[in-house]
Amino acid sequence: MIKEEIERAFRELSNWGRWGVDDQIGTLNNVTPQKIAAAARLIREGRVFALGASLKWPLQSTPNKGRWNVIHSYMQDGADAHAAFIDGMVEYSDDAIHMPVQCSTHWDALCHTFHGGQTYNGGDARDFRSKGPPKLGIEHTANRMAGRGVLLDIARFKSVDHLENGYTISNQDLDDCAAKQGVSVGQGDFVIIRTGYQERFLNSGNWHTHSYSAAPGVAFENCYWLKEKDVAAIASDTYAVEVVPASADGYGFPWHSVAIPSIGVTVGEMLYVKELAEDCARDGIYTFFFCAPPLNLPGGTGSPINPQAIK
Amino acid sequence: MIKEEIERAFRELSNWGRWGVDDQIGTLNNVTPQKIAAAARLIREGRVFALGASLKWPLQSTPNKGRWNVIHSYMQDGADAHAAFIDGMVEYSDDAIHMPVQCSTHWDALCHTFHGGQTYNGGDARDFRSKGPPKLGIEHTANRMAGRGVLLDIARFKSVDHLENGYTISNQDLDDCAAKQGVSVGQGDFVIIRTGYQERFLNSGNWHTHSYSAAPGVAFENCYWLKEKDVAAIASDTYAVEVVPASADGYGFPWHSVAIPSIGVTVGEMLYVKELAEDCARDGIYTFFFCAPPLNLPGGTGSPINPQAIK
Amino acid sequence: MIKEEIERAFRELSNWGRWGVDDQIGTLNNVTPQKIAAAARLIREGRVFALGASLKWPLQSTPNKGRWNVIHSYMQDGADAHAAFIDGMVEYSDDAIHMPVQCSTHWDALCHTFHGGQTYNGGDARDFRSKGPPKLGIEHTANRMAGRGVLLDIARFKSVDHLENGYTISNQDLDDCAAKQGVSVGQGDFVIIRTGYQERFLNSGNWHTHSYSAAPGVAFENCYWLKEKDVAAIASDTYAVEVVPASADGYGFPWHSVAIPSIGVTVGEMLYVKELAEDCARDGIYTFFFCAPPLNLPGGTGSPINPQAIK
Amino acid sequence: MIKEEIERAFRELSNWGRWGVDDQIGTLNNVTPQKIAAAARLIREGRVFALGASLKWPLQSTPNKGRWNVIHSYMQDGADAHAAFIDGMVEYSDDAIHMPVQCSTHWDALCHTFHGGQTYNGGDARDFRSKGPPKLGIEHTANRMAGRGVLLDIARFKSVDHLENGYTISNQDLDDCAAKQGVSVGQGDFVIIRTGYQERFLNSGNWHTHSYSAAPGVAFENCYWLKEKDVAAIASDTYAVEVVPASADGYGFPWHSVAIPSIGVTVGEMLYVKELAEDCARDGIYTFFFCAPPLNLPGGTGSPINPQAIK
Repeated sequence: MIKEEIERAFRELSNWGRWGVDDQIGTLNNVTPQKIAAAARLIREGRVFALGASLKWPLQSTPNKGRWNVIHSYMQDGADAHAAFIDGMVEYSDDAIHMPVQCSTHWDALCHTFHGGQTYNGGDARDFRSKGPPKLGIEHTANRMAGRGVLLDIARFKSVDHLENGYTISNQDLDDCAAKQGVSVGQGDFVIIRTGYQERFLNSGNWHTHSYSAAPGVAFENCYWLKEKDVAAIASDTYAVEVVPASADGYGFPWHSVAIPSIGVTVGEMLYVKELAEDCARDGIYTFFFCAPPLNLPGGTGSPINPQAIK
Repeated sequence: MIKEEIERAFRELSNWGRWGVDDQIGTLNNVTPQKIAAAARLIREGRVFALGASLKWPLQSTPNKGRWNVIHSYMQDGADAHAAFIDGMVEYSDDAIHMPVQCSTHWDALCHTFHGGQTYNGGDARDFRSKGPPKLGIEHTANRMAGRGVLLDIARFKSVDHLENGYTISNQDLDDCAAKQGVSVGQGDFVIIRTGYQERFLNSGNWHTHSYSAAPGVAFENCYWLKEKDVAAIASDTYAVEVVPASADGYGFPWHSVAIPSIGVTVGEMLYVKELAEDCARDGIYTFFFCAPPLNLPGGTGSPINPQAIK
Repeated sequence: MIKEEIERAFRELSNWGRWGVDDQIGTLNNVTPQKIAAAARLIREGRVFALGASLKWPLQSTPNKGRWNVIHSYMQDGADAHAAFIDGMVEYSDDAIHMPVQCSTHWDALCHTFHGGQTYNGGDARDFRSKGPPKLGIEHTANRMAGRGVLLDIARFKSVDHLENGYTISNQDLDDCAAKQGVSVGQGDFVIIRTGYQERFLNSGNWHTHSYSAAPGVAFENCYWLKEKDVAAIASDTYAVEVVPASADGYGFPWHSVAIPSIGVTVGEMLYVKELAEDCARDGIYTFFFCAPPLNLPGGTGSPINPQAIK
Repeated sequence: MIKEEIERAFRELSNWGRWGVDDQIGTLNNVTPQKIAAAARLIREGRVFALGASLKWPLQSTPNKGRWNVIHSYMQDGADAHAAFIDGMVEYSDDAIHMPVQCSTHWDALCHTFHGGQTYNGGDARDFRSKGPPKLGIEHTANRMAGRGVLLDIARFKSVDHLENGYTISNQDLDDCAAKQGVSVGQGDFVIIRTGYQERFLNSGNWHTHSYSAAPGVAFENCYWLKEKDVAAIASDTYAVEVVPASADGYGFPWHSVAIPSIGVTVGEMLYVKELAEDCARDGIYTFFFCAPPLNLPGGTGSPINPQAIK
């Protein structure tokens, strides 16, 4: 892939201005109330799948790369509470978390990725200083993360436990998998792609090389697929959705450079989909109600989440 | 109120053992798949209300009380991204949060409150040391926070913008309000009580005395109501749900001391309910699909949340 | 005071280039090995005064201003250690701190203050992005913070417990006080000014309005005094050294705007000097060996310190 | 080594009660004013060596072991300051650190290590709960960390760049080295042992296996040496001072179990001694004035430090 391909896709696929000059949420605009109401009818039996990875899994296994695993500290524990009891005081425990918003299962906000110093919908990256971005923070999506979810279980479709590192999921793969599963991806869907990547680490118990390393994922051409399908958001069980390394001279994450700042797609990463995928394989139903609210974090470049798939 | 009342309620209302000796989620067991499926049918028009307070609101306005407002730091901002562009590198921003899990809108986990050194279902508080609790962490509720939500808008029922500090909501108030609203609170419901407390601070812009101060809330007798109604969880727009100060000699939060460790009720605090309440007043429908997933934080004494009410 | 005064002082007092274009430490260059050896001879009796304020004092008493008091968390406490003993494991406790480097007693590094977008010695503020400054971090002073200390006890000189908020210490005050004390401030000295401000809060136990509020301190003209005396560094028991508010139209901290980026003076704030001052008053000796090493924090805009005055 | 040896040493070497039942600082009591004044006379030429490792070195290279490398975040950077200038506001930068107090160069406080659930001077570990220890915090040493420093350069004495992992430094090694260097270790000295361990990582640039791994260090018998010499404190360039692994059945750090809670020795770890050692080798003078103030952190199990050796 050459730089020109990225520049061309960036221009051709742009949704800038499509929802007005002040738009803050990009393709989440595709989720209409009607679609939400329709998606609710996918809840038939009341089974709920939590897609948030355990915050104890050391997904940030590469030290000193700028992110870290959640630091979870107790200001008061049960032994303190017991002592409070003896002292006749209130008995409670208390804790705190210190975490990069993107260190485990999370949404990438539209202010997370830039290209050529530009943000989605034509902002200047330099206006986003240490106090936070003037626009496109995750808070704008606080009530926009509900709708129809579709699982595309590429690993199962390929009859493997997990795709190999570097495996590049083509648009044809996605369409063939959808056809095999009997689903049609459409406007306003929340698409979740399963590669089996996370489960491989879970099975081995060795998280070394989880992040900042080779991984399977979608091809750069997936940008065109996203635009054509006009989905609401896309997510996966890997840390980047796109294949790593991508064959893009000088661009570490070329798909990100188009999907987020040009198309305006919110991206979900490191979802835990094992149990949902098993359930879908069992009943053959790959669609569900999806609800994945971010924290209401003004200026967040993303948010930790625990997405819910409800069937 | 005297200590004996608390002890009596603790004994009489106990759900210990009701769902087995290994139960970790208490009254959330009341939410059956059938109830979830039924609740989904409350989504008729696809309107979504985000009930998470902005993490920029300084809800922890009393300094040096052990909790603090979220510390939100950027490891990379847009200016860095712009420079990365010039250097031909990946352009992205990155941030982190350091926050008590209970500093803004949150769930209290069952391991958050003790009484007499005991936890819900008969654990010993002293087994919960600095590394976290052996049981009852918020992670056990990761896929249990969906079902029917019911708003009891006590402030509106009382025809006030907000209940005064110290106003004690009786069980009769709750039942009368429900009757007026045409709803019946029942087993497995997620009940949300609106006092207008948070909106008072929002309107004034002065958050001084928000936390650790006087507030309206439910009476101690509400414990009996919770047990009788057998709800899944209870939440409010205040920081304690119960009235502060409570007239309990030596007990700062007597309702907590029974509701959580004896009855096993998960408690939601500091929810933002203004817009939901206005919508309910407008259409007269006070029930909705409720989805409020916690972060999957093993051993969390609670979790920040952005609950979704969907009608 | 008008803006022109600041600009004039900035130009006239500049030490840019004086110690070379690559200089990173400004007036700390004035501390020669000879001066250090001479200062050591001030240690006659071996009395040591720790000038670091307790990190439990809530010096950041104004909430939501960007800094916070140290968050001190234990990863393991003694109860855990006791359990480890029972389990036959290593018995230890462990803790962590999360603090702004400038929230308590600290040095301001030369990269802490800019003027007109310029740093000391002619750098561009914009080159200091989220990953830290290219120059002038506190690490460059790691072995430069030892020499002769001089206390100027202005409060005692004025026969008050503490100077009133807004009291402006003139250069004449400093010279008169020095004369009265029998000391002569000279090149390479570490000057500490006592106002009694911190002790006022200590005595009352009420820290409200400690930071970001009115305080006594040196006049703007002190910039000229600093340049003339050619001191190594200047410090005080207030949070800003200079008087707050300063009568500088549109400039919150005009003395900072000249002292740091033009003259290149490292500034110490919030020192605890009560006991040292009492000792100096007792024996009439206001000079001592001073050793105040910063943490070796590359790119730090300052560092928490616990300065030592040794007589 | 067997457990009985540890128990015997713990009993035989105890300093409990030696400085009163309320003593908080153990062997630091050995540093008298006279010794400090005498030590000051070791400052002859005014050369200062900073012994604090850079806080950017990833000394905590083993992930998920409970400690982490310093997290250094900027609340405001120079680009913000530049914008503030344009807006006519105060121009400054600001940053914060989140670090275990023991993640880089630090003192272990006497409350850091226990044995048999007991602290130095007879406290019960269980009284040290989540809010901190009732006694023995690092704050008690705030003005006690100055005196005579002695470097024992074991690596140079053994004519190697660094001792091999697992090399056990005997008491004979220490005494022979001291004799070769022409120094006599005595009461109240701050002893620093150089193994070359840290320099090995510095030279390779690969910090993998730095902490929680094999390292050279003093033998268990060093406890007897500490007691006999009656030093003030002992420090080294390794992360544990003692050899790792120690041949102590079931005891990870047997020397710690005696040195700290029985003898009451404050321990310094991960000091950067390369340049100091080179200077000592050059001039043959291995003693110096030593000043290593901890932060004034009440209840700290230790403190990050930047010790100063001044000759």
